[in-house]
Amino acid sequence: MKPNFSLRLRIFNLNCWGIPYLSKHRGDRVKRLGDFLNMESFDLALLEEVWSEQDFQYLRQKLLPTYPAAHYFRSGVIGSGLCVFSKHPIQEFTQHVYTLNGYPYMIHHGDWFCGKAVGLLVLHLSGLVLNAYVTHLHAEYNRQKDIYLAHRVAQAWELAQFIHHTSKKADVVLLCGDLNLHPKDLGCRLLKEWTGLHDAYLETRDFKGSEEGCTMVPENCYVNQRELEPFPFGIRIDYVLYKAVSGFYISCKTLRTTAGHDPHSGTPLSDHEALMATLCVRHSPPQHTPSPTHGPAERSQLISVLKEAWAELDLGMAQARWWATFAGYVIGLGLLLLALLCALAAGGGVREVAIMLWTPSVGLLLGAGAVYLFHMQEAKGLSRARAELQHMLGRAREAHDLDPESQAALFLGQQEGDRSEEQ
Amino acid sequence: MKPNFSLRLRIFNLNCWGIPYLSKHRGDRVKRLGDFLNMESFDLALLEEVWSEQDFQYLRQKLLPTYPAAHYFRSGVIGSGLCVFSKHPIQEFTQHVYTLNGYPYMIHHGDWFCGKAVGLLVLHLSGLVLNAYVTHLHAEYNRQKDIYLAHRVAQAWELAQFIHHTSKKADVVLLCGDLNLHPKDLGCRLLKEWTGLHDAYLETRDFKGSEEGCTMVPENCYVNQRELEPFPFGIRIDYVLYKAVSGFYISCKTLRTTAGHDPHSGTPLSDHEALMATLCVRHSPPQHTPSPTHGPAERSQLISVLKEAWAELDLGMAQARWWATFAGYVIGLGLLLLALLCALAAGGGVREVAIMLWTPSVGLLLGAGAVYLFHMQEAKGLSRARAELQHMLGRAREAHDLDPESQAALFLGQQEGDRSEEQ
Repeated sequence: MKPNFSLRLRIFNLNCWGIPYLSKHRGDRVKRLGDFLNMESFDLALLEEVWSEQDFQYLRQKLLPTYPAAHYFRSGVIGSGLCVFSKHPIQEFTQHVYTLNGYPYMIHHGDWFCGKAVGLLVLHLSGLVLNAYVTHLHAEYNRQKDIYLAHRVAQAWELAQFIHHTSKKADVVLLCGDLNLHPKDLGCRLLKEWTGLHDAYLETRDFKGSEEGCTMVPENCYVNQRELEPFPFGIRIDYVLYKAVSGFYISCKTLRTTAGHDPHSGTPLSDHEALMATLCVRHSPPQHTPSPTHGPAERSQLISVLKEAWAELDLGMAQARWWATFAGYVIGLGLLLLALLCALAAGGGVREVAIMLWTPSVGLLLGAGAVYLFHMQEAKGLSRARAELQHMLGRAREAHDLDPESQAALFLGQQEGDRSEEQ
Repeated sequence: MKPNFSLRLRIFNLNCWGIPYLSKHRGDRVKRLGDFLNMESFDLALLEEVWSEQDFQYLRQKLLPTYPAAHYFRSGVIGSGLCVFSKHPIQEFTQHVYTLNGYPYMIHHGDWFCGKAVGLLVLHLSGLVLNAYVTHLHAEYNRQKDIYLAHRVAQAWELAQFIHHTSKKADVVLLCGDLNLHPKDLGCRLLKEWTGLHDAYLETRDFKGSEEGCTMVPENCYVNQRELEPFPFGIRIDYVLYKAVSGFYISCKTLRTTAGHDPHSGTPLSDHEALMATLCVRHSPPQHTPSPTHGPAERSQLISVLKEAWAELDLGMAQARWWATFAGYVIGLGLLLLALLCALAAGGGVREVAIMLWTPSVGLLLGAGAVYLFHMQEAKGLSRARAELQHMLGRAREAHDLDPESQAALFLGQQEGDRSEEQ
């Protein structure tokens, strides 16, 4: 590669709000999205919430001349909703489905049925290896009382770990998607601190679009206005994040968002705003590459966010275990009830009533059994993420303690008790 | 690193058969295993089927002086059963739970509840990066009529992909575990072809142990003799596989297995035989590193095995869809029955019977709904693996076609139709 090597990447990201039968004007919006993507000819278009595979196939046909490579990431019962269109050949792709993703009995929320995942594409561009990730985390339905918080933190950690372990030989890492996390939310900080990814909105000097870079804005006619009431400008939950590994330098030249309308001021393409970033990758001597996790200040921040995430997962685990125990008691009660009913049925008298109650009791027992199993699995999943966090926390602390510059920094001694469970 | 760098690694692998209440002499076997591991002081001991976390904690305490680092991989309802003890510090660990792992209604087989997974450990040894993987794939209960074949092939592919994507910067890759695959089974060939891993048993010049390296042998008193009837020497389903990446050369100096007894000729440590390998890693000029997937002959083999796996997953998908359709019909019938019962209950006459049948009908409906959802998810999971396989098949074929040496080799034109679905 030449020393004056430079690569320009134009990226598009949109949560398409493509729920069959439920999302308004879906067909029209998908058509207009296709027209827009064809016209703009991005290097990479990463889409979320394309729930219908027919929509993907329609876009694929339409975009074939401009984006010869495409992939739809299938998972769960419904699908991950993730897909990608690329102007350049895709060398490899794979995906990781998040271990925890809400509750199957929360049917009206539906996330569990989607099998939310992170998709990975490996592209070779002018001799440079680009790992592009696209994801969609569990939705936030109630910010004040968020029953999915632990799951979202666990997802953010799994996402960070997946990127960390699969991008070790990549020159450039790109993550786009709907994280369902505000910029200062724990999951977002955890992801950024652990992976060293930079936020295009915060990094670019040339931003045009919605106020404060929000990706769900009250101006958008498809947005539920009541949900956005506490946020006058809207919320920023969709991201373009990137980093370059040693030897390269990446910057965001421009970032554009739609602002409640489509790019030509018509009806919006979705209830989310689209992100359009122009990234520039350049050669840089290794010593010039920023390395965000190496300094003592960055390590302190990492330790602090790892601790916070650990505590959140611990809370989640306690709750999962409470539900499993509760379901265990219900199973016990159900068994007692069944035994009683069998005795009554055998004894005559209220025989008919006993027989009639037998099947609901079996139903109760099976339901409680399913709840028990589900929450046991949830506890195991949270415990797994907590163990990984704890291990990295221990290692970050060791590195921090060894660092002569950091002796004075941060309170480190607290909450040491948690070291005992995992080495 | 010095040019004459050399590293010796002593590895232990055992499927421990540690099912609480069911596995014979579990406590005694775990105790003896701990004694043996302490005495031998391996670099790395990788264990499967440690289903009880208490057994892991017991071993951890016992092995702490010799193996200061340990990790238990939690997943599913019961757990993955995987754990590891290391003489050297573990830098990082993570895991990937297989998307498909049997059926929840096959309770007597139990695999679904375990959340079978692959665990990854990253170790830094004398400046060398070692990625060690431990796994346990879905059991084979009936070799003649194996209903889990597609799942095991999908697991082998996910395992191969996980290793491929997470080991790109590793110097040495090690995979140990119970693959539940015979050496010539499709899954095993797929794994080896795609990752380039070498089989310690086939590579070593110094093997001592069971006949043909079998890891389930009729001499073992815990083995179900009837199941081994078609295999007079036993079966080889547990493996030590390895490879070195450019710049290094790895070889297996010695491989030992137990042979139906414990290493001191006492009662066996498990129903499987233990594998004990001594590996030697040396520096080698890049051109001397064997690269098994680069030649036209190897590429032909890869293409052939990818095609075979594709066909197997396709069969599995058809079956999953058949079950989903069947469950769909049952749902329809259940709904009709419910409507009929409601009408009968309202109309009098057979009112009591109608009310009594109402709950079983709802049960039938819910059961069929669950089966429908499960098989839809199964079809999605198989379809995902098939799409990845197909993409790599396309790329392998392109590389093969471009290769001037390979023009005459293999029949390539057949089954081209499958190219149409995925790019």
